[in-house]
Amino acid sequence: MTAYFDAIEQVRYEGPDSSNPLAFRHYDPQQVILGKTMAEHLRMAACYWHTFVWGGADVFGQGTFIRPWQQAGDEMELALLKADIAFEFFHKLNIPYYCFHDVDVFPEGRSLKEYLYRFAQMQDVLQRKQEETGVRLLWGTANCFSHRRYMAGAATNPDPEIFAYAASQVCAAMQATHALGGVNYVLWGGREGYETLLNTDLRQEREQLGRFMQMVVEHKHRIGFSGTLLIEPKPQEPTKHQYDYDSATVYGFLKQFGLEQEIKVNIEANHATLAGHSFQHEVATAISLGIFGSIDANRGDAQLGWDTDQFPNSVEENTLVMYEILKAGGFVNGGFNFDARVRRMSIDRYDLFHGHIGAMDVLALSLKRAAAMLEKDQLGDAVAQRYRGWSAPLGKQILQGEHSLSSLQQLVLDAGLDPKPVSGQQEYLENVVNRVLY
Amino acid sequence: MTAYFDAIEQVRYEGPDSSNPLAFRHYDPQQVILGKTMAEHLRMAACYWHTFVWGGADVFGQGTFIRPWQQAGDEMELALLKADIAFEFFHKLNIPYYCFHDVDVFPEGRSLKEYLYRFAQMQDVLQRKQEETGVRLLWGTANCFSHRRYMAGAATNPDPEIFAYAASQVCAAMQATHALGGVNYVLWGGREGYETLLNTDLRQEREQLGRFMQMVVEHKHRIGFSGTLLIEPKPQEPTKHQYDYDSATVYGFLKQFGLEQEIKVNIEANHATLAGHSFQHEVATAISLGIFGSIDANRGDAQLGWDTDQFPNSVEENTLVMYEILKAGGFVNGGFNFDARVRRMSIDRYDLFHGHIGAMDVLALSLKRAAAMLEKDQLGDAVAQRYRGWSAPLGKQILQGEHSLSSLQQLVLDAGLDPKPVSGQQEYLENVVNRVLY
Amino acid sequence: MTAYFDAIEQVRYEGPDSSNPLAFRHYDPQQVILGKTMAEHLRMAACYWHTFVWGGADVFGQGTFIRPWQQAGDEMELALLKADIAFEFFHKLNIPYYCFHDVDVFPEGRSLKEYLYRFAQMQDVLQRKQEETGVRLLWGTANCFSHRRYMAGAATNPDPEIFAYAASQVCAAMQATHALGGVNYVLWGGREGYETLLNTDLRQEREQLGRFMQMVVEHKHRIGFSGTLLIEPKPQEPTKHQYDYDSATVYGFLKQFGLEQEIKVNIEANHATLAGHSFQHEVATAISLGIFGSIDANRGDAQLGWDTDQFPNSVEENTLVMYEILKAGGFVNGGFNFDARVRRMSIDRYDLFHGHIGAMDVLALSLKRAAAMLEKDQLGDAVAQRYRGWSAPLGKQILQGEHSLSSLQQLVLDAGLDPKPVSGQQEYLENVVNRVLY
Amino acid sequence: MTAYFDAIEQVRYEGPDSSNPLAFRHYDPQQVILGKTMAEHLRMAACYWHTFVWGGADVFGQGTFIRPWQQAGDEMELALLKADIAFEFFHKLNIPYYCFHDVDVFPEGRSLKEYLYRFAQMQDVLQRKQEETGVRLLWGTANCFSHRRYMAGAATNPDPEIFAYAASQVCAAMQATHALGGVNYVLWGGREGYETLLNTDLRQEREQLGRFMQMVVEHKHRIGFSGTLLIEPKPQEPTKHQYDYDSATVYGFLKQFGLEQEIKVNIEANHATLAGHSFQHEVATAISLGIFGSIDANRGDAQLGWDTDQFPNSVEENTLVMYEILKAGGFVNGGFNFDARVRRMSIDRYDLFHGHIGAMDVLALSLKRAAAMLEKDQLGDAVAQRYRGWSAPLGKQILQGEHSLSSLQQLVLDAGLDPKPVSGQQEYLENVVNRVLY
Ligand SMILES: [Co+2]
Ligand SMILES: [Co+2]
Ligand SMILES: [Co+2]
Ligand SMILES: [Co+2]
Ligand SMILES: [Co+2]
Ligand SMILES: [Co+2]
Ligand SMILES: [Co+2]
Ligand SMILES: [Co+2]
Repeated sequence: MTAYFDAIEQVRYEGPDSSNPLAFRHYDPQQVILGKTMAEHLRMAACYWHTFVWGGADVFGQGTFIRPWQQAGDEMELALLKADIAFEFFHKLNIPYYCFHDVDVFPEGRSLKEYLYRFAQMQDVLQRKQEETGVRLLWGTANCFSHRRYMAGAATNPDPEIFAYAASQVCAAMQATHALGGVNYVLWGGREGYETLLNTDLRQEREQLGRFMQMVVEHKHRIGFSGTLLIEPKPQEPTKHQYDYDSATVYGFLKQFGLEQEIKVNIEANHATLAGHSFQHEVATAISLGIFGSIDANRGDAQLGWDTDQFPNSVEENTLVMYEILKAGGFVNGGFNFDARVRRMSIDRYDLFHGHIGAMDVLALSLKRAAAMLEKDQLGDAVAQRYRGWSAPLGKQILQGEHSLSSLQQLVLDAGLDPKPVSGQQEYLENVVNRVLY
Repeated sequence: MTAYFDAIEQVRYEGPDSSNPLAFRHYDPQQVILGKTMAEHLRMAACYWHTFVWGGADVFGQGTFIRPWQQAGDEMELALLKADIAFEFFHKLNIPYYCFHDVDVFPEGRSLKEYLYRFAQMQDVLQRKQEETGVRLLWGTANCFSHRRYMAGAATNPDPEIFAYAASQVCAAMQATHALGGVNYVLWGGREGYETLLNTDLRQEREQLGRFMQMVVEHKHRIGFSGTLLIEPKPQEPTKHQYDYDSATVYGFLKQFGLEQEIKVNIEANHATLAGHSFQHEVATAISLGIFGSIDANRGDAQLGWDTDQFPNSVEENTLVMYEILKAGGFVNGGFNFDARVRRMSIDRYDLFHGHIGAMDVLALSLKRAAAMLEKDQLGDAVAQRYRGWSAPLGKQILQGEHSLSSLQQLVLDAGLDPKPVSGQQEYLENVVNRVLY
Repeated sequence: MTAYFDAIEQVRYEGPDSSNPLAFRHYDPQQVILGKTMAEHLRMAACYWHTFVWGGADVFGQGTFIRPWQQAGDEMELALLKADIAFEFFHKLNIPYYCFHDVDVFPEGRSLKEYLYRFAQMQDVLQRKQEETGVRLLWGTANCFSHRRYMAGAATNPDPEIFAYAASQVCAAMQATHALGGVNYVLWGGREGYETLLNTDLRQEREQLGRFMQMVVEHKHRIGFSGTLLIEPKPQEPTKHQYDYDSATVYGFLKQFGLEQEIKVNIEANHATLAGHSFQHEVATAISLGIFGSIDANRGDAQLGWDTDQFPNSVEENTLVMYEILKAGGFVNGGFNFDARVRRMSIDRYDLFHGHIGAMDVLALSLKRAAAMLEKDQLGDAVAQRYRGWSAPLGKQILQGEHSLSSLQQLVLDAGLDPKPVSGQQEYLENVVNRVLY
Repeated sequence: MTAYFDAIEQVRYEGPDSSNPLAFRHYDPQQVILGKTMAEHLRMAACYWHTFVWGGADVFGQGTFIRPWQQAGDEMELALLKADIAFEFFHKLNIPYYCFHDVDVFPEGRSLKEYLYRFAQMQDVLQRKQEETGVRLLWGTANCFSHRRYMAGAATNPDPEIFAYAASQVCAAMQATHALGGVNYVLWGGREGYETLLNTDLRQEREQLGRFMQMVVEHKHRIGFSGTLLIEPKPQEPTKHQYDYDSATVYGFLKQFGLEQEIKVNIEANHATLAGHSFQHEVATAISLGIFGSIDANRGDAQLGWDTDQFPNSVEENTLVMYEILKAGGFVNGGFNFDARVRRMSIDRYDLFHGHIGAMDVLALSLKRAAAMLEKDQLGDAVAQRYRGWSAPLGKQILQGEHSLSSLQQLVLDAGLDPKPVSGQQEYLENVVNRVLY
């Protein structure tokens, strides 16, 4: 096979002074930070769909890319060509992981039987490619939202046969993920929501979704998959309202169905902002609820109300996210997957490299800055100082359940308490952060 | 005492053809709908704060109303004058309920001791007023967000003494609510959130809030209060992020602390839209989670990002909300409280009547329309028809846990299932609704 | 040809009590309101693209409709089939107008030459269909945003050859519109904006757009087209920022290039709300600036940040819009075009009727309500009363330029003026509106 | 007088390695960049209102700061104390400019006469303070939005007497600004908008606003004020809709009233984002329209829908803004005014320093980074390259009016043009920016 990206061998670290646009300036995979290599910290992955499936179409316009595998021809031959070039890309990008949906890799065919046959074929191909390149699978998933059968949902579909069809796909995709050594399995419920309440039974659909997720957990244990199960929250789009709205909402769902020890969240930056939260908020919230799993690294546009899936390019934003993750001990199975696509106008094939390289450098630099923040953790110290009263007797008694509303009222009266507010120091702390960043 | 609203005796039902702006055209308290009077269905309440405390100031301008009790003078005398006029208003408006925060009714004074003394004084006044007018208390609450001591939260404050101070207020307000025959007690955590994650320990603050709510539940049982405890969700404002973001988030919180049987939600229309949801969504979601309690009836402005607290004026919106509530069996202890204020420019005293009368008529008409929808429940029938597969064998087996992912895969393969989508009929159903409305 | 919509002959007016979902309850074309028939007032149109081109695909999923003309086959034969069924629909819907983009009607082919050849062919077809059915053309337009050549804009493209290509299409589409008796020509600059300021020269692109619009005006006069030229504002989507952001922005653009007497705006409800305005605001603003032309009648979703193009279904919203239009004297050449599509799940062919019938009834009823508002124009009277000071001496002198800042200061000092605010009566006026609506 | 900020002498530049939170790390006033000192480039100003008037109240809570001059006492004595401490602050902050509203400096009193008397008094005080400290006036303005008389607007008020009152204030404030050597005069129309269209005559209010601005221009020339007149756009808040929505809207207004050569815009970052634009967009748009004047430097919160007026802290955002300004030749009379306030919880007096120092450093660093971008202007080169066709014959001919739609159609046909899209290179250019930033 002739190389598609023939102008490049492999992206290398050249240091901050490099002006080579096809080199890393900050991502040095083997550089050790706080006891682990950058590669081990970041566990970055490229996305099959965003980079090799999407053709550049949007709601108002046709595809702009017209890659060799996006043209007329035999479906499975094009799938093989796509796989060749995808792994050529992963390898040349020097990225350790990739992610895929089942039907990113092959067209699903006319029946479940054909789907399974093709999946098995392509699983072998992926297996071989992984071995050849050393690229590993961060997570697999099943696309249960693009086919028209899923227009009203997969697990939450009013038709139990469609539920069954979705179960079939997830069953297959979990097994393939397991076989390919994937370290996580993701569930994004793109159509698990509603378009209008007029035709929707919320309680019924929630029960269906709850049972579906329980089946996923049961299947995981049955097949011995030791990776992490992840739900990816998103508030809306394509549906008007998606049930996995944000991390706090997913937490309530997991608690209802007894799944909070079994499933974690895959937080996408753009989904956070669509839900009305900062990216840091979603990460910090998931950590505080004990359900933080992995990251879909991208960015939205603060002025736009849809999922733009742009490559992350803000060190300011990602340093704070990285700080939260490092404080929480880093990823277990998760990583930073680039759920991001080059703009529709970025039709040059090397634009795919520019998008990823810039993003990988942003995360690498953010990691370095966050590590520097932690070295002399002024934020952590300020927070500890601020809440110190809760380690003192009154605070402890309250949290240990030794007080009631009326005992506290009596205490305030007896002691004549008139507690005074103290500065929250927000501007000072923002300057502390900027002092590390610049 | 001379009447403040001397131009009006009492607002009466005059029927749809009335052109009297100070009469009801739709709200006929004793009219029976689906077996209950309109008064019993709607349980409407006027708000002490919005109508008698707010002076018309906004972030960019001073107060515009300058009511008699909003001028210089002896604090407690002004408080008495305010109570006189408030109950004159409730009575003349012909509204069955009112609601209040502790410090709406009296200025809190210089210490908890003085606060309690004044509260006791004013409780007697309110008691007498209730008896004189027959107006009842829908709910009471404590304002733990306006005083500067609460600038960093009440239950979630970094200082346990401030937690204790808040507990003292809630203890007092619960007891007063109980004594006054209140049928609910509300907790709105106006400052229970964060301004910046840089100085915030999310897990710690959540623990504090969880313990606080447990104490509230314990206190309820201790004093024998048989009303409903309500948390009012709001996503932000005044804080950047409030922990009680929306109904789904509150549900997760209640589950975490074992409170889902003890506390319900008080849903405010404007808070729903600030959280990125429709009003109907929040009501339907709370119902589907079993935590629906009461309503703060108002509206926001679809183009503005803050809580405008306008009077509800959309029959289209409120009919759908009413339909959800009726289908769920109606209110138990809850009702429609007008958490709404006349605009800053509506400085004429009778504007207070126009705001409330219009809103009461909107809810009354919405009730009538929703009842008409239910009479021949085309929406309900369409929904039942849509999900009928879940009452058939396959659907039942799935929900009863008799299937796994792989058994379903096998089933699809064996039966060669290729389920087809069916129309969601959204436009048809929207027309069904408009056919009832107009 | 066999009828596609074989279950229906033609939609008729059956009155408010009809329960026939395929009849009009409010739209009675020949009913006279304020001196004109409803058909003459509303001038409603159906959209070729939304109803016959879009296949139900969205960003996350494939087409769901799969109409007969949306399947594999000879391109031009399918185009003819589509035209047949489109006019069958227009006729059966009893709608007086339709609208189209050039390439809605035929696939553009491989060159401008082929495009022109096909356009001429299909123009004949449309001509014949119009004659057979009596359906007329409200407006034509050229799609200069879907083809990948336009990915960086048409008139504002960095490449003047692409500008020339767009000019060729607009030239052809204007001539066809003229020949087909179209009463307006619309320009929606779907890609006339930017994705990132990093690669954009705002001043340059604005000059290009200005020159393009001047050429359009010149061409109109050259060919003797007596219809109205319309720019359709939209703030974003597909671009991050579109230059024709809203009516006020278009007004500034027209003033800069001396076009404010030549071009008016086609206001789309959904675009108004995407721009952060109410629909009524955009209509009232355009009227106040003298550039109101026509309407793209639809609605967005208050919780979603993209163009959902749903059918209008709010009588509350559209009555206020209708009131503004009636007060301004009604449409000259414009009308209500349904820039609206059935939901992706509404895959039944008769859903197309449900969407349009509901919308037509909403507009008809809104017209009736707005006419009732005008009969005894309480809003108009209140506004006149509110501003009456500007018809009195001081107001007149100020507006006639007879005062300066210092003469007014002297006047306030001399007269000791201390003007007092008066109530804006918002709640009262909202009740006035509801009194007409219900 | 004892110093209020007694712990600090004057903030000095100590370089990037300084860990002194009360020193500049990047702002070195005399450092020369691209031929001018940093002080000359940035022309930074502190705000009287935000720093010395606002007491920390928000819509849900009382003031938190309780500064010495925010307590009970003689009004004018407190005004003098406030002025003393304000200039102590300006001096110690080492900031070259300040800005004020008339009534920031003194309470307006009970009549225009008293207002003018007090203004004259305080003008002398400010004059003396300016001389003592060397701090200069970037701009003055009149507050015509806080007093209840302005609740329905100042220039756009339905009552011409209120228009006259506003004119009196603006007259006085312009004269004071002129006398104090102010280099700009700002008009922010806080209430020049509407709350509801139901009581509003848009055309009438626009005429009033147009005449008012003409009077301002006439007055400027009469008194010989050589500074720049500035309108500050804001889309909403406190009103539902403000007429000076954004730069493009203000441009249309200026064109309508023939003022586009006389008035420029003062762009506030937070107002840009409230209008749905990026800060860079508003600056670039104003520059492209020839109306860029000055900046209100602050930031909003991407998740909140109101004006948070936080201190700028993003070097990423401000570098791009600075790049636009430098490319346009820098400020003439304008500068960077900190329209920003410390958070309500930042109650320590030195928090005022932390807010300003952090912000000044952010702007200084952004200036350095933008200058570095310009040194080897890769963005500028890419843009020039992208649009090069418009300097070639076809492009020139089009812009010079030598082509019509039909001549261009003929040209495309004759030459068989089929222009191809080229990459927009967005990711590459984003990496170029990050390469300068980090
Ligand atoms: Co994702
Ligand atoms: Co996404
Ligand atoms: Co409320
Ligand atoms: Co509210
Ligand atoms: Co449109
Ligand atoms: Co649209
Ligand atoms: Co400002
Ligand atoms: Co501001």
